[in-house]
Amino acid sequence: MRTVAIIGSGMTRFGKHHDKSVIDLMSEAVLEALALSKVDRIDGLIVGTMSPEHYENRIGIANILAGHLGVEGAIVMRAENTSGSGGSALYTGWLTVACGLADIVVVVGGEKMTHLSTEENAAIIAGLVHEYERRTGVTLPSYAALVARYYLYKYNVPREALAYVAIKNHKNGSLNPKAHFQKEITPEDYFKSKMVADPLRVMDYAPISDGAAAVVLAPLDIASSYTSKPIVIKSIVGATDTLVLHEREDLLHLEAVRTSTQRALKEAKLTLNDVDLLEVHDMATILELIELESMGFFPRGGSWQAVIEGYTQLDGELPVNSSGGLKSKGHPIGATGVSQAHEVFLQMRREAERRQVRKDVRVALSMSMGGFGNNAYTVVYEVGW
Amino acid sequence: MRTVAIIGSGMTRFGKHHDKSVIDLMSEAVLEALALSKVDRIDGLIVGTMSPEHYENRIGIANILAGHLGVEGAIVMRAENTSGSGGSALYTGWLTVACGLADIVVVVGGEKMTHLSTEENAAIIAGLVHEYERRTGVTLPSYAALVARYYLYKYNVPREALAYVAIKNHKNGSLNPKAHFQKEITPEDYFKSKMVADPLRVMDYAPISDGAAAVVLAPLDIASSYTSKPIVIKSIVGATDTLVLHEREDLLHLEAVRTSTQRALKEAKLTLNDVDLLEVHDMATILELIELESMGFFPRGGSWQAVIEGYTQLDGELPVNSSGGLKSKGHPIGATGVSQAHEVFLQMRREAERRQVRKDVRVALSMSMGGFGNNAYTVVYEVGW
Repeated sequence: MRTVAIIGSGMTRFGKHHDKSVIDLMSEAVLEALALSKVDRIDGLIVGTMSPEHYENRIGIANILAGHLGVEGAIVMRAENTSGSGGSALYTGWLTVACGLADIVVVVGGEKMTHLSTEENAAIIAGLVHEYERRTGVTLPSYAALVARYYLYKYNVPREALAYVAIKNHKNGSLNPKAHFQKEITPEDYFKSKMVADPLRVMDYAPISDGAAAVVLAPLDIASSYTSKPIVIKSIVGATDTLVLHEREDLLHLEAVRTSTQRALKEAKLTLNDVDLLEVHDMATILELIELESMGFFPRGGSWQAVIEGYTQLDGELPVNSSGGLKSKGHPIGATGVSQAHEVFLQMRREAERRQVRKDVRVALSMSMGGFGNNAYTVVYEVGW
Repeated sequence: MRTVAIIGSGMTRFGKHHDKSVIDLMSEAVLEALALSKVDRIDGLIVGTMSPEHYENRIGIANILAGHLGVEGAIVMRAENTSGSGGSALYTGWLTVACGLADIVVVVGGEKMTHLSTEENAAIIAGLVHEYERRTGVTLPSYAALVARYYLYKYNVPREALAYVAIKNHKNGSLNPKAHFQKEITPEDYFKSKMVADPLRVMDYAPISDGAAAVVLAPLDIASSYTSKPIVIKSIVGATDTLVLHEREDLLHLEAVRTSTQRALKEAKLTLNDVDLLEVHDMATILELIELESMGFFPRGGSWQAVIEGYTQLDGELPVNSSGGLKSKGHPIGATGVSQAHEVFLQMRREAERRQVRKDVRVALSMSMGGFGNNAYTVVYEVGW
């Protein structure tokens, strides 16, 4: 297997793009990534997206995008794994380069969502809940509320803990010119926001966004002819948990997150202690907390204090979601996993400008999660110079 | 990279399954493949399907199937590339085992289509044609007719040539208990069948079918503990052509088919002369002819004589579509590429019963094609004992 590096990345602003299709958004992200990496060809194109079928009645999106970009003779396909589609696309692109099937592979993720109403979006997302549980009326947002309520109760946690996750991510997002929301929020803003499903408020949830992100992959030995600062993808591993939540032994633990993280670090011959930066899947604030614990960075019930104490801020020991996370950067579903790689790429190269983390980042990790943790892909990155 | 082998395979009957969902069909194929291969675990599950979103309003099919099968802790995703989704799924599963990310990987393809009317199916399939060309009213079936008409004209070919492809594939299908159509047709049947788009008749086209197929992959060194007759996947390579047909220099040549075949054989260190068996994508009879030529097995305009002379029959020098092909076996879109691997698996092991080809099959090749040849994945197989 060859060592694989990211040599360029690109991203549209996440937010509302009334005048653009998902093909426009993906093309924009790909062209930015190609321009930055100075490559003049594409040998492979892997497209991560959840449902252009539902959102824009499109079929065969990878082939439409290849046609739009004028990609010929390349290895092209779409990778899909609901909200973890970006991670699955990175996985497929990474294997393609690692195994020598192609040299210059573009991985792009994207979704166009905001042209539909909140109700229409909710109806689509409801399809991710297992049909037996769906009949009870439960949704992904209400799953999160059930878990949050139990977390607060079990570990005797103040509601402020959830607020701190949102406040941190909005602060980071306020420094990210590509984020959907670019403004800080105060504890007052948080507690004044509408209750969605007690204890979670509007300010606990990621918004519905349009957007796309792309990275250009190449074998490390070729990468050096394009950039002096390649970012190596050491490993990517996916793992599943039960789709039905009531079959899980412990609602406060995400077994797929644990398994994929442990296996990915083992493949990379690294440990949790080596990790300098994390991007996680904070579809709701509570998920950031239980992902940090399931990954093993904090003991059970121990992550919220770390967040409150500033440990996960830009100048902290382990910055988490320096991009603003799903909460503030936005969550165009298929784009999210790839946008995490974009953030790691910038932070490791110290090109993240106003949101640059204090510490030097040698090793980073991103968590691309499908559904409510039923599928997780962990990506391990290391500087390549 | 590790050598990857198929250790088991399974397939539902292709046809009309009024009482089964795509999840039921995929599960049936997976369980048959697991039973045959005697594995007691799944480390990876790659699902190939075109659009359960359009057909059954499903979202996140890979995760639904994983939940249905009780697969936990595994690498799970869906691979999509329209009618080439099966080939893309095989590719992803093959890389997963080759790179050592997982040992026992199930690749399953399927589609549930017949509950919709012909008109509803046509409307979905129309989405595969580029939007600029779609406005002219052209469809995949009429593309095929344009190409067939030009082929007959350019090489001065009698219409009987197309009939012979259909007759051969129906004969093979009549011997396949899993085929959608299990009856032979005569030249009279062919010429009596309704004209769809001159010169192509109903008997030139694959039907709309429901069905699923699955294979179990494992590294060759482990495979021997499950079977004495593993089938090695030597290589899989994908390639694209223009999506828009009017941009192609030559309508009678499928450049993606040529590129993927040449590259796959090169990776496998084999040549066209080594190939003993072929499964190709005969969505329409004309496609079987021009694929055989684009792959390089016959000179331009030379495949039809070979078909008429019996060269591609079960007892011929190079049996093509011994399964019955899409024409007679059926074409549940996402299943097709995986069902080709299933056929190769049976033929190489000489377990194809009444349709067993005369020759010993040491090397075989399958062509999983997306759209009208805009995306092609070629799979090269070799006996593993």
